[in-house]
Amino acid sequence: MQYYLDGFRPGDPDIKASARDPNLDAANGNAIPACVDVLIAGCGPAGLCLAAQLAGFPEISTMIVEPKHGPMEKGQADGVSVRSMEMFQAFGFAEKIKREAYWVNQTTFWKPDPGKPQNIHRVGIAQDVADDQSEMPHTIVNQARIHQLFLDVMKNAPTRLEPHYGLRVRDLTIDVSTNDHPVTVVLEYVTEDGSAGDTTTVRANYVVGCDGARSTVRKAIGGKLHGDAAHQAWGVMDILANSDFPDLRRKCLIQSAKEGNILIIPREGGYLFRMYVELEKLNPDERVATRNLTSDHIIAAANRIMCPYAIDVKEVVWWSIYEIGHRLTDKFDDVRAGETDRRNPRVFTAGDACHTHSPKAGQGMNVSMGDTFNLGWKLAHVLTGRTDPSLLHSYSAERQLEAKRLVETDHKWARIMSAPPGESELDGSEMPRFQKQFIENLEFTGGLAVHYEPSAIVAKPIHQHTATGQIIGKRFHSAPVLRLADAKPMQLGHIVEADGRWRIYAFAGLDDSGHNDGAMHKLCKFLDADKESPVRRFTRRDEDPDALIDIRAIFQQDFTSLNYEDMPALLRPAKGRYGLRDFEKVFCVDHKSGDDIYGMRGIDRKCGCLVVVRPDQYVAHILPLDAFSDISEFFNGIFRAS
Amino acid sequence: MQYYLDGFRPGDPDIKASARDPNLDAANGNAIPACVDVLIAGCGPAGLCLAAQLAGFPEISTMIVEPKHGPMEKGQADGVSVRSMEMFQAFGFAEKIKREAYWVNQTTFWKPDPGKPQNIHRVGIAQDVADDQSEMPHTIVNQARIHQLFLDVMKNAPTRLEPHYGLRVRDLTIDVSTNDHPVTVVLEYVTEDGSAGDTTTVRANYVVGCDGARSTVRKAIGGKLHGDAAHQAWGVMDILANSDFPDLRRKCLIQSAKEGNILIIPREGGYLFRMYVELEKLNPDERVATRNLTSDHIIAAANRIMCPYAIDVKEVVWWSIYEIGHRLTDKFDDVRAGETDRRNPRVFTAGDACHTHSPKAGQGMNVSMGDTFNLGWKLAHVLTGRTDPSLLHSYSAERQLEAKRLVETDHKWARIMSAPPGESELDGSEMPRFQKQFIENLEFTGGLAVHYEPSAIVAKPIHQHTATGQIIGKRFHSAPVLRLADAKPMQLGHIVEADGRWRIYAFAGLDDSGHNDGAMHKLCKFLDADKESPVRRFTRRDEDPDALIDIRAIFQQDFTSLNYEDMPALLRPAKGRYGLRDFEKVFCVDHKSGDDIYGMRGIDRKCGCLVVVRPDQYVAHILPLDAFSDISEFFNGIFRAS
Repeated sequence: MQYYLDGFRPGDPDIKASARDPNLDAANGNAIPACVDVLIAGCGPAGLCLAAQLAGFPEISTMIVEPKHGPMEKGQADGVSVRSMEMFQAFGFAEKIKREAYWVNQTTFWKPDPGKPQNIHRVGIAQDVADDQSEMPHTIVNQARIHQLFLDVMKNAPTRLEPHYGLRVRDLTIDVSTNDHPVTVVLEYVTEDGSAGDTTTVRANYVVGCDGARSTVRKAIGGKLHGDAAHQAWGVMDILANSDFPDLRRKCLIQSAKEGNILIIPREGGYLFRMYVELEKLNPDERVATRNLTSDHIIAAANRIMCPYAIDVKEVVWWSIYEIGHRLTDKFDDVRAGETDRRNPRVFTAGDACHTHSPKAGQGMNVSMGDTFNLGWKLAHVLTGRTDPSLLHSYSAERQLEAKRLVETDHKWARIMSAPPGESELDGSEMPRFQKQFIENLEFTGGLAVHYEPSAIVAKPIHQHTATGQIIGKRFHSAPVLRLADAKPMQLGHIVEADGRWRIYAFAGLDDSGHNDGAMHKLCKFLDADKESPVRRFTRRDEDPDALIDIRAIFQQDFTSLNYEDMPALLRPAKGRYGLRDFEKVFCVDHKSGDDIYGMRGIDRKCGCLVVVRPDQYVAHILPLDAFSDISEFFNGIFRAS
Repeated sequence: MQYYLDGFRPGDPDIKASARDPNLDAANGNAIPACVDVLIAGCGPAGLCLAAQLAGFPEISTMIVEPKHGPMEKGQADGVSVRSMEMFQAFGFAEKIKREAYWVNQTTFWKPDPGKPQNIHRVGIAQDVADDQSEMPHTIVNQARIHQLFLDVMKNAPTRLEPHYGLRVRDLTIDVSTNDHPVTVVLEYVTEDGSAGDTTTVRANYVVGCDGARSTVRKAIGGKLHGDAAHQAWGVMDILANSDFPDLRRKCLIQSAKEGNILIIPREGGYLFRMYVELEKLNPDERVATRNLTSDHIIAAANRIMCPYAIDVKEVVWWSIYEIGHRLTDKFDDVRAGETDRRNPRVFTAGDACHTHSPKAGQGMNVSMGDTFNLGWKLAHVLTGRTDPSLLHSYSAERQLEAKRLVETDHKWARIMSAPPGESELDGSEMPRFQKQFIENLEFTGGLAVHYEPSAIVAKPIHQHTATGQIIGKRFHSAPVLRLADAKPMQLGHIVEADGRWRIYAFAGLDDSGHNDGAMHKLCKFLDADKESPVRRFTRRDEDPDALIDIRAIFQQDFTSLNYEDMPALLRPAKGRYGLRDFEKVFCVDHKSGDDIYGMRGIDRKCGCLVVVRPDQYVAHILPLDAFSDISEFFNGIFRAS
């Protein structure tokens, strides 16, 4: 964590220096602006993840509206995939979640006992996060805490961004003839009882609808959710309860012979847990609301399914009845499929506004945040003039395909979860189907299967063999290293902040120690001084040399065999108002865990390689260290010269 | 981290439910109370560490006064030993410090270059925290942040404790004829410019003087600091600077041939660092103030000493000139040496109020917090009626001896640091004396050499051989384990909170899996049900079974070989208003790092053993699992039956 670059400031380093005009603040309070760069509808995980990222840019004005009159307190989503934890690390609050949350380490599987089929018994156990799949755990914590941590990031950011509560998007129109705040948004005040009040108008350059399955933003751009419903009612409840069931603190998948299924999710704090309980089959065209089901129905069904065990519920913290639906829009922005070369998007949807699915795979919140973490840096690039607005087409292109995969996988999973146990399972001759499928799904449910296809921002995998464990189009996979200047053991991936910057990780080849005639030195010389260098071309005169593209070097030697003072100048840059040297650009291997980052991530030890990583932590390109013209070409395809 | 035991509460789990009467609060604001249980003088590390611990007890009224008009912003101490980090873990903010702070991983040593003695060159490097010495790093962060994190703990505790600023202890008197608030304290209001104002009076049961080297509390009880001064002026400064010196991000000890010595301490944030710079020899009886030294003198001396390197200072954040003194009081409380069997202490001193030394070994803040972490649980025990007040004698007995060791070690270290390099060092024939001594001191400077002598609360080491890595009288040494109920990998020591509770770690012998005829089962049966059990005798009727003595079991098997449902009832206790089961009492080994806790801590695998740990994390006793009468006897010597 770097701070004090521009001088000492007392207090919490997570509270950044304010970039707001205090006079303006005092005069306007939380007034509605006439124009904003980005208007976000909805303070759910998608909206807050986007707002938290944009709040870091003083030059971008952002407004986020929420119909409710304050932050959420409980309920809804609770699963945080390892991939989301990696993203939280970049936002600076992964450690907080690790401390507070339940960690999903092992999942157990329960089936009818063949000798006594009305009783369930434990049939299997599976490790949830494979060794070295991520340095982060899979955690469970209530969605309200995630909201609060994003709200803290926003409030502590230079823009001191806070939501406008009690306000919702009623409608919007886009004037395609102008580039000056072309989206006119009608906002409606919402009273405490939820009814509609007066309206007001805001003009925005971009609007992002994170306003849930009934999204008015989606409707305004003509988007429709397509899909089906499984005609199956489920109940979900967060409870404090006692039970003779022994696995209350492990995630459990339970299939009974005739009473349906249960998913148990232990929760933060050591006592609370969640149960998803299969209730009744619905008739075609019937909506679950007609059944008038309550938490008592959920508790009764749970006790039937868990026989011979019983649950004695002491407090129902939150409950809900829902039916499974898997639905998706065709496009996550306002530009129709055939029009992408004629105009650029102005309005986007994210999260439940464009894809809905069963909550039981723990994907909803994670995929929603993944949507806006993908969109955030692109909007920031466009609004700060770094890239052409056509970059914004890549949001729908990348995320709609991922959502499609999600809906399909989730559909399949829901069918398997609800299917009665088969013969071959009951006699124990093979691993139960739901356990097999659960294990197969783990990379997917961990959020690690996301794989973007080649485009202007994802290169073709020509040099993939030089870093076989860093897959182009997938997320950068962290590993342990030592920082040379202070010998600090750390995760290489943890240098990333959610700040819209690109990273280049240059892995040195054998015997390269940064000396004058080596490949690392030549690469740094090119990046530092050549007129074709993207660092030179696209970094602005008044910016630090790493403001847009942050270069880090990793060497194969240990820290006693390298000299910081021998490193090329680019790896010891002068920064900030005092021109202070940044000592944190050079790393070496850490052998304490046995292997090192070269072995763990399949980096070519002989020649090394260069891994280009996008601001959202996805690998964009892998290149040889001396492929100078390829480096230039790749970034020339993205950035505008400043 | 356990919470929600008594029902769900939205929001940050570190903000505990308030135990204050809101009506009273509204009426009184931050008024001065007539009587308090504990009055603490001074908001430094010693005072705040004590206040943070006492704030957790709603039944104890605490007041803390500070002459300054608000929290500290910068300067003074910055070193946090691994032992203090372990204590911060119990207070819940070690992770925050780990994230923000500089980590001392390697220290380098610089001496005159024999070929060109006016120049320094690097002669050695040493690992700062030995492998497995602690699970915590040695960190550096400004004292103001530590203060703030303690203040946060206080404010979020059930008592919502906040300091009374602008108030200092002027004098106090003790009425030995009463037990009803026998200490009358005269408090003086301090104006913004530091001058004295009106006075007011508070009566207290106990007063703790954490009011620095000029302590009025110490003076009021007739305490005097004895010791000497080294007649050597030193300068210290926190700076943002550039330099061609390559080791700015490593802790460095630098000895020049003729210009004196420097200690470089890199600081939080990646840019800031501290320098301790040797300045001028003082004449006998001369005070450093007479020399009128400034930060310019420090910078000039630094540049002379570091030749051929130069330092270009951009911002001096804080600086100070001081002379080394090593001083100590005879007693840390108000009871003279010959009077200990006649009366119990009422007034204590802690931190600089009773021992001062050179700042350069990074001990001041750490030892000061160690003082009050030792005193806090003892005061809480006495004030909640759990023990006889004679327990309080052990504070001075334990801490004065430790302070004496500190002052002696620090004295020796200061002499070595200031001695000119010897012949044998200059020719490189042996390791420089200061490097040798530095390495020898590491256990001590890490805060891990503290070793309390046998007493009522530290047993004689009769069974030490059954846990050779857990030394009776030293701090409990954590190691990795897996929690059985949820297979969570964790540090066993991290279950401890700064809550005044005792812990018993019961390590099971070979083949014991908690079953009915095993030693673990018999131990739990004794502790749970026998009338001689300390858990039964000393836990109150309205308390949870682990409210005073918290029993945890560790097994040698891995988690797939143990069944939570087979565990004795004591290890699955019902707690809180709902009688919810606590699932976090049972652990098994974690082999992921190769060895396991039995091997790492020398636990007798055949028979196991029982490790009794005090609320301040020090090992009080080691016993066989079946030594029931010894267990009873030990606790009978401490607690009063309730």
